[in-house]
Amino acid sequence: MLKSETTPRPRRAARLLAALLLTAMPLLHAASVDLMPIPAKLAWTEGRLAVDGSLSVALKNHDDAQLRSTLTRALRRWEERTLLTFRRTDTAEFVLASDPSRAQLVIDCAAPAREIPMLGDDESYTLTVSAQQAVLSAPNTLGVLRGLETLLQLIQRDADGWFVPAVKIQDTPRFAWRGLMLDPCRHWMPMEVIKRNLDAMALVKLNVLHFHLTEDQGFRVESKTHPELHLQGSDGKFFTQDEIREIIRYAAERGIRVVPEFDMPGHATAWVVSHPELGSAPGPYVIERKWGIFDPVLDPTNEAVYKLLEDFLGEMAALFPDPYLHIGGDENNGKHWNANERIQQFIRDNDLENNEGIHAYFNRRVRDILIKHGKKMVGWDEILHPDLPQDAIVHSWRGREGLAAATAAGHATILSNGYYIDLCFPASDHYHNDPIPADSVLTPEQQKLVLGGEATMWAEWVTPETIDSRIWPRTAAIAERLWSPREVNDTRDMYRRLGYISRRLEEAGLNHERNRPAMIRRLAGDRATAEQIAALSLFIDLIEPVKEYHRGQHHHEHTQHTPLGRLADCARPESFVVREFSYRVGDFLSAPANARAELAADLEQQLTAWLDAAQVVTDFLKASPAELRAGAPVATNLHEVSGVGLAALDAINAGTKHPASWRTAQLATLEKAAKEHDALLLPMLGAIRELVNAASAP
Amino acid sequence: MLKSETTPRPRRAARLLAALLLTAMPLLHAASVDLMPIPAKLAWTEGRLAVDGSLSVALKNHDDAQLRSTLTRALRRWEERTLLTFRRTDTAEFVLASDPSRAQLVIDCAAPAREIPMLGDDESYTLTVSAQQAVLSAPNTLGVLRGLETLLQLIQRDADGWFVPAVKIQDTPRFAWRGLMLDPCRHWMPMEVIKRNLDAMALVKLNVLHFHLTEDQGFRVESKTHPELHLQGSDGKFFTQDEIREIIRYAAERGIRVVPEFDMPGHATAWVVSHPELGSAPGPYVIERKWGIFDPVLDPTNEAVYKLLEDFLGEMAALFPDPYLHIGGDENNGKHWNANERIQQFIRDNDLENNEGIHAYFNRRVRDILIKHGKKMVGWDEILHPDLPQDAIVHSWRGREGLAAATAAGHATILSNGYYIDLCFPASDHYHNDPIPADSVLTPEQQKLVLGGEATMWAEWVTPETIDSRIWPRTAAIAERLWSPREVNDTRDMYRRLGYISRRLEEAGLNHERNRPAMIRRLAGDRATAEQIAALSLFIDLIEPVKEYHRGQHHHEHTQHTPLGRLADCARPESFVVREFSYRVGDFLSAPANARAELAADLEQQLTAWLDAAQVVTDFLKASPAELRAGAPVATNLHEVSGVGLAALDAINAGTKHPASWRTAQLATLEKAAKEHDALLLPMLGAIRELVNAASAP
Repeated sequence: MLKSETTPRPRRAARLLAALLLTAMPLLHAASVDLMPIPAKLAWTEGRLAVDGSLSVALKNHDDAQLRSTLTRALRRWEERTLLTFRRTDTAEFVLASDPSRAQLVIDCAAPAREIPMLGDDESYTLTVSAQQAVLSAPNTLGVLRGLETLLQLIQRDADGWFVPAVKIQDTPRFAWRGLMLDPCRHWMPMEVIKRNLDAMALVKLNVLHFHLTEDQGFRVESKTHPELHLQGSDGKFFTQDEIREIIRYAAERGIRVVPEFDMPGHATAWVVSHPELGSAPGPYVIERKWGIFDPVLDPTNEAVYKLLEDFLGEMAALFPDPYLHIGGDENNGKHWNANERIQQFIRDNDLENNEGIHAYFNRRVRDILIKHGKKMVGWDEILHPDLPQDAIVHSWRGREGLAAATAAGHATILSNGYYIDLCFPASDHYHNDPIPADSVLTPEQQKLVLGGEATMWAEWVTPETIDSRIWPRTAAIAERLWSPREVNDTRDMYRRLGYISRRLEEAGLNHERNRPAMIRRLAGDRATAEQIAALSLFIDLIEPVKEYHRGQHHHEHTQHTPLGRLADCARPESFVVREFSYRVGDFLSAPANARAELAADLEQQLTAWLDAAQVVTDFLKASPAELRAGAPVATNLHEVSGVGLAALDAINAGTKHPASWRTAQLATLEKAAKEHDALLLPMLGAIRELVNAASAP
Repeated sequence: MLKSETTPRPRRAARLLAALLLTAMPLLHAASVDLMPIPAKLAWTEGRLAVDGSLSVALKNHDDAQLRSTLTRALRRWEERTLLTFRRTDTAEFVLASDPSRAQLVIDCAAPAREIPMLGDDESYTLTVSAQQAVLSAPNTLGVLRGLETLLQLIQRDADGWFVPAVKIQDTPRFAWRGLMLDPCRHWMPMEVIKRNLDAMALVKLNVLHFHLTEDQGFRVESKTHPELHLQGSDGKFFTQDEIREIIRYAAERGIRVVPEFDMPGHATAWVVSHPELGSAPGPYVIERKWGIFDPVLDPTNEAVYKLLEDFLGEMAALFPDPYLHIGGDENNGKHWNANERIQQFIRDNDLENNEGIHAYFNRRVRDILIKHGKKMVGWDEILHPDLPQDAIVHSWRGREGLAAATAAGHATILSNGYYIDLCFPASDHYHNDPIPADSVLTPEQQKLVLGGEATMWAEWVTPETIDSRIWPRTAAIAERLWSPREVNDTRDMYRRLGYISRRLEEAGLNHERNRPAMIRRLAGDRATAEQIAALSLFIDLIEPVKEYHRGQHHHEHTQHTPLGRLADCARPESFVVREFSYRVGDFLSAPANARAELAADLEQQLTAWLDAAQVVTDFLKASPAELRAGAPVATNLHEVSGVGLAALDAINAGTKHPASWRTAQLATLEKAAKEHDALLLPMLGAIRELVNAASAP
């Protein structure tokens, strides 16, 4: 009934498999500092603290349940990574030593942290490791949390066992607001996604979960005052208030604040599904299933809107302990306001001038409700308006001008422009997006108003299966930007350390690497040979999903229900293999002629494997169902591009220069290969172009 | 500060990487039936039903919420595997066609299933697929559930898209009780472990979750009548009653019963931690952290024991709807009874003869409590006694004699002897463990008393990270044994189909393959080169953990707290690579001389890669911390064994025969390699021995 499979061809398979495994994992070079984020001050000293199962730990000064649970979680992770078993009591608690002077690890904590962390809390710590003892000192438990993460990153091993290198660290964050925004609205993200990402955030010292809980595509929080909101607006996929409390507790344990966002007056389709009378157009409304900016918007002239917000925001203000509450405010396209004569009349009657004016009116009304419930308002760029209350925080997403304008107007700000991790840009872009660069146009007064930044993980193109791979490890680069001194900015070293942090994240339970082989097997299907799967894996290591919002153009038929298991979903947002390849091309081209041979052989081996894999993948995709076949041109292009690279390499190795006509032809091939197909692109074109240029007459 | 890593050696790396990927995944050959379990009756017919996103589905006859949710879950899995998007309503429900005669998939269900499945419920279905339509008919929703699993396994693809081959299936299970026992006591297993394993059970048509909830190492269920039981007996790791209800609901949705076990009077340490007065020795007691048979046992002479059981079992009887309740009853070593004069006096006073007699007395008292609460008793072998109430089910674990004895005494029985998946025996062993083999010694009356069987996953050596890899895919072979006709028993075909079911299990969210690469990366550490990681991966594909209870001898220092991330935890219980290698050795040796060349080349390639990998792994492990170094002798042995295999292969290829002295020397090498180290063994010794014999003079 089924054709028997192709017999694998061992030799070609061997070549490409070697390339696959030798390049898929960024090689972890030894270096002086492997930490991420890099501490404010660090100095290596002599020696190492050897650690085995007899590790003795003592608490000095402060001791409470929060500190003990922090320590317990850290020691458990230490055990899991090292396979050591530390000593425990009969009731399964880690044994604490009574005499700090003789303990190997001393936690010297001066005072408790708050039960729930707050903006501006002291997160500093010092960590001093000698051959005898590691001492972690902090003014409060929050500093202990941050310091334990550093300590866990310091652990190393060799044939003699596990150890911590001797070091003196003094650390404190550069910015107080270091966030990750999660969007469980567009695609539902259950508890485990939130929890494991909180674990990851703590690992890289992020301290704010910005929780985007309402959208056109879903109303994801239980309301007890207006249960119709979540019942009709969520397909049954929402966080109960108990679950929200559990998330807040879990986050607080990790020193992370939870700032909820309820997006209004736009992005409000899921609100008006149950309350069409609160919309600016007659309705009825259904939950949006596609992506984009939609028309539904709350009616600012309708007092019933404020009545409902009074109930709902009051309820949410009680549920979320953080003093800040995000009201969104972005991307109201104004169409329903324009089309509603009553609203336009209201604008005229109240001298509100235009839609921006009535938006500002709406914001003042909402802010009055928030003040009543003890909350401070945060909103996206669009809330900035001369009438915006002074105490509102502006969350800048549209551009750096927003940051300048908001701080000029005296508003505290958070930066997300440049941290849109859903757009699949390289980590280096985010890394160099300094909220206050050395040449900042902001005045010192304005600079004080920049609280920090947030990576934003909008969820149009992610599911619980893939979201970790979109957030991590790239967000660790943003975490470092927000924690470490401005002067920590070596891109290549950042990428090197990203390799380590990726391992630590994986050990903490993140799935950014774990799910990919299973996704590839599913995509390849039961009849794929091992060679085809290996070639597909290499191919996926070499491609990237398209950037910005291009994917919607390629996969415009996608809805909230469409499975996200295509090639673009398997690919990393940034190919670390190609990043490393590009560095090596640079190394090769800048190496003295007599040092080039080994580098050339390495590049040739890689390009040959790419060529082989591209051929296998092209054939495989062409014989697959349409959803896979769509990616075949990219594999064909990879084949051609690899050929161009090999030809250029040959010429460089031979010391010959091709004529300009050759160069023109090769660049035309690269140009053709730059075309996007099936929401995929080839990120190695720049490096290949460098090879072509180096192989050509000037 | 750290030594720079070794530069990978591409050529050797290429060889072993090729071998790694080409053999790590069992090749999926085309064949007539890829289903598992194989249906009772199946006949292929002409044609195929093409399926794309426009799939139309209709319900015929019965329609209710249970049926719709069953269908919804199946269609969602269908989408996720195929990347198709079926049509939905505005409220996100799958669109149902109104006219069954024109639908592509018709669910013809005669009646509802029970809300909670019961022993003996009709699980039959028929599935008829033509080029126009698939019709799934069943007497109730339970049959629809089973039939949809078969349908999902039938889906295939080629360049023309997705399709279901035309077929006629009539299916019904051979045994009514087809279970998996999970033990969240020895190592705690949170909700997600239970849920994903319920998904997996449904996929292979298992229908009983035997939930082992109390043990020496943990009391894992919330008691509201005696909260001290779980509070003092669990380190805070227990299922709340709400969670238990959620598990029961989740299981019922998948046609799975939940039978709880509360092990007594032995295995009771966690009971007497909070109630030392109920033990047979004075106490105090602490939760056991190690593995084995322990002394603590309830005191059958103490009326307070029955008072507590009356409360607790009454509470559990109300919580668990299944009419059966398992009281354990195994492995009471009698030491505390022997040492307690009051108990011995009670035995004498009541003519109970010995410890077995007072155990039977205890069981009668417990059974009276169960009857009062409407439950039937199930217990392990040891409960069998002339005084055992007739309606008690005997769960046979010690040997097939137990099955014979229990049924001879008129007791219904369940077989677990031969299904102890924690002992790491090959799937084939379990597969051929027929509860009623063709040559069964049981009378037809006795045979009727054999209800079925259960795979038992005792949790001494598993964690949430590794448990799936211990259960799956091997348990699918047990599921087939219990569902399919006795005549379905081709071992090699079973292994072939196990490759497919493993993929389906992975797609359903099981982690049996997914976690391994991450575990290997953690084990290898940050400084391991790609070549070392690849060699370790191949090595781990080739080794197995020791069988039976040998691991406790190797890792006797392990406690409940010891991380399980060693080589033995990474290795599959059964090496499918070696299984396939052994088959190929058999193929090679039985092939006509002129057909041997290709098979020989394949074997040589594998053995050479093993040899290379073994060398890399030996060096790597020797330079690693002690927990890894312990496995080095196994890598050294693999190196020697691979050399023996290659030498034998050379001789066979050359048509020469080595003298007997050579044979003796090689077998001695194999004998030495059979020694276990670090709880590991080499499973290819038999196949290599065959090669040695074939290469030697007789």
